[in-house]
Amino acid sequence: MSTVLLASCSIGKKTSSSSSKLTTTGTASGQYQGVIQNGHYKVSKARGVNINQNDNSYNLKSFETGLTEVSKKVFSTKSYIFQEGQYLSTDTIENWLGRKTKSNPTGLNAAQGKKSDPNPEYVQQIEEQDFMQQNGNSLTLKGITIGIGINSVYYYQKTTDGPTYQKKLSDAEIQKQGKIAAQKILTRLRKKSALKNVPIVIALYKQAPNDSLVGGSFFAYSKNNGNTIKSWKKLNYSTKVLPKASDATSTNSDNETDNTSFSNFKSQIQSFFPNLSGVTAQAQYQNGTLSGMHITVTTQFYSQSEVQSFTQYIARAAKKYLPNGIPIDIKIQSSSEMQAVVYRDSGSDTFRTHVFSSY
Amino acid sequence: MSTVLLASCSIGKKTSSSSSKLTTTGTASGQYQGVIQNGHYKVSKARGVNINQNDNSYNLKSFETGLTEVSKKVFSTKSYIFQEGQYLSTDTIENWLGRKTKSNPTGLNAAQGKKSDPNPEYVQQIEEQDFMQQNGNSLTLKGITIGIGINSVYYYQKTTDGPTYQKKLSDAEIQKQGKIAAQKILTRLRKKSALKNVPIVIALYKQAPNDSLVGGSFFAYSKNNGNTIKSWKKLNYSTKVLPKASDATSTNSDNETDNTSFSNFKSQIQSFFPNLSGVTAQAQYQNGTLSGMHITVTTQFYSQSEVQSFTQYIARAAKKYLPNGIPIDIKIQSSSEMQAVVYRDSGSDTFRTHVFSSY
Repeated sequence: MSTVLLASCSIGKKTSSSSSKLTTTGTASGQYQGVIQNGHYKVSKARGVNINQNDNSYNLKSFETGLTEVSKKVFSTKSYIFQEGQYLSTDTIENWLGRKTKSNPTGLNAAQGKKSDPNPEYVQQIEEQDFMQQNGNSLTLKGITIGIGINSVYYYQKTTDGPTYQKKLSDAEIQKQGKIAAQKILTRLRKKSALKNVPIVIALYKQAPNDSLVGGSFFAYSKNNGNTIKSWKKLNYSTKVLPKASDATSTNSDNETDNTSFSNFKSQIQSFFPNLSGVTAQAQYQNGTLSGMHITVTTQFYSQSEVQSFTQYIARAAKKYLPNGIPIDIKIQSSSEMQAVVYRDSGSDTFRTHVFSSY
Repeated sequence: MSTVLLASCSIGKKTSSSSSKLTTTGTASGQYQGVIQNGHYKVSKARGVNINQNDNSYNLKSFETGLTEVSKKVFSTKSYIFQEGQYLSTDTIENWLGRKTKSNPTGLNAAQGKKSDPNPEYVQQIEEQDFMQQNGNSLTLKGITIGIGINSVYYYQKTTDGPTYQKKLSDAEIQKQGKIAAQKILTRLRKKSALKNVPIVIALYKQAPNDSLVGGSFFAYSKNNGNTIKSWKKLNYSTKVLPKASDATSTNSDNETDNTSFSNFKSQIQSFFPNLSGVTAQAQYQNGTLSGMHITVTTQFYSQSEVQSFTQYIARAAKKYLPNGIPIDIKIQSSSEMQAVVYRDSGSDTFRTHVFSSY
């Protein structure tokens, strides 16, 4: 059993006898502490698998960040310590993500079928997160979360190096296939002795297409104490890119208001310099209401005082034009590098600014 | 005369009659407000000149940031509004930065002399900053600051496309040549009717060599009400890169302590991931005491939870190992882009963190 050291003063402190010293990354408001073992971060047993699974890197970041948000609904950041997945290895997950064949019996995707009209691969990425509690001098596993990313578009080639074709997959099929994969994974996890009795949360994510400028969204999760998934909770997230393309139709008047706010913000800051700035945003909606934005402003700066002035101006325009009460960050960058950041955290009403300078 | 609008609620507000509407970028603690005219930032009349003058971009940022710090010693951010230089044009400054020849009589650098052993060019960059006060409905110029960057190494070629030679320039000569250039510039500025009676601050900066990983430093400034520079105030800034090269000798035990603190911080966070991180810093010293640091941590991340955990860990290690009471920022980046920032502002004892995420 490992000796555990969770005190926040423990960085670099030597303890006497432990051969497997554990500590954590330290607390941050609303964030999990992470597990450090012998001074090293305890990395995932399947580290890096999902990097190769995502041609669109927005799906990678959005999936990982979103999965942590789902976990927080079940395992509070105050009571649980985060550990990168330790029960599913790179080999296991790579096999699961493959097609089911004689040589890969655990593949969660169907056999290929006709090469000219293959069965779609639905299951695109899988991630495990572990949640621990301190128990005397050790950390004990108290639950795990599994995220499953399901494709909304299946990309395939009929011949090697031939053109890429795509099949759009229906929401009904995405949900169905996600739930089938989830039950298979739950059954497999319950066979591992360490996972027999802990709560297992499974969350389903719809991948964005490869050409999207924003990632996909989680649409359902289930908390399981037994071997069978009995019910799913719906997650009503959606993401979009602002400003909206001029020919797009809005299905929702709230979204229309958000788009107008953003357009006002954008035109305000685009007129600031003689050369126009690029201003785009990723927006996330929860139950039809805007729940956060990541904005990127790209322009050419000619001096540090221009960066400083522009940053102040953006902070002021953000406060005036952008919706209240949601987390927002604004990256201010030149073509080569980030120059400043303006951000408002969840639950705060103040925009903070930081300008990157140099001695 | 321009109509001026300084209220902080004025972004985007239409005023009735003004043909040259002025407003500002808004306040930020310890920073100047900047001038906006007709919705556009009022850019420098010599915009971009110094970009071409600096082969080492650290000299560019450091010169501009440092000049603003010198200005703050004379023109307080509470009483003055910052305006980018409006009295020296691109042509004027480019001529002044050239060698004195028949076709360029205002060149501040000496004629070339022998091509095989040229006279050094000392004056490398010049920047103007204007300081305004609100006077009824208009902004009035109340002072200007001129920064002059003087080379510490002169780079030259004996033949076109031939090898580059360098001459190291002595501190005594740098100071002498800087003061000569300053007096010439003061005399020229006093001939402009708008600048006859305002205080003119001139600040001298020693450029870092082209291969330096940190910019140079301001070493003197002078506030002038008349036509002749009567006295200089010494500025005792210096910059260095940490960790110190192992063969470097320290001239100062304080610096040795700072280097040890930084090395402890570095080794702590380098052991965090199985793959090593690059950890370097720019340090600034004022009167021999550490006055600020810009730290860059580069490592490969495999997931968003690794970025989140590493950021929390760095904030904690920074608090524990890095010196108190000075502004510090830490850029956390992968090879491709910035992933997070940890920073402590001047006068604060709290490190703030922001992780760049994506929907």
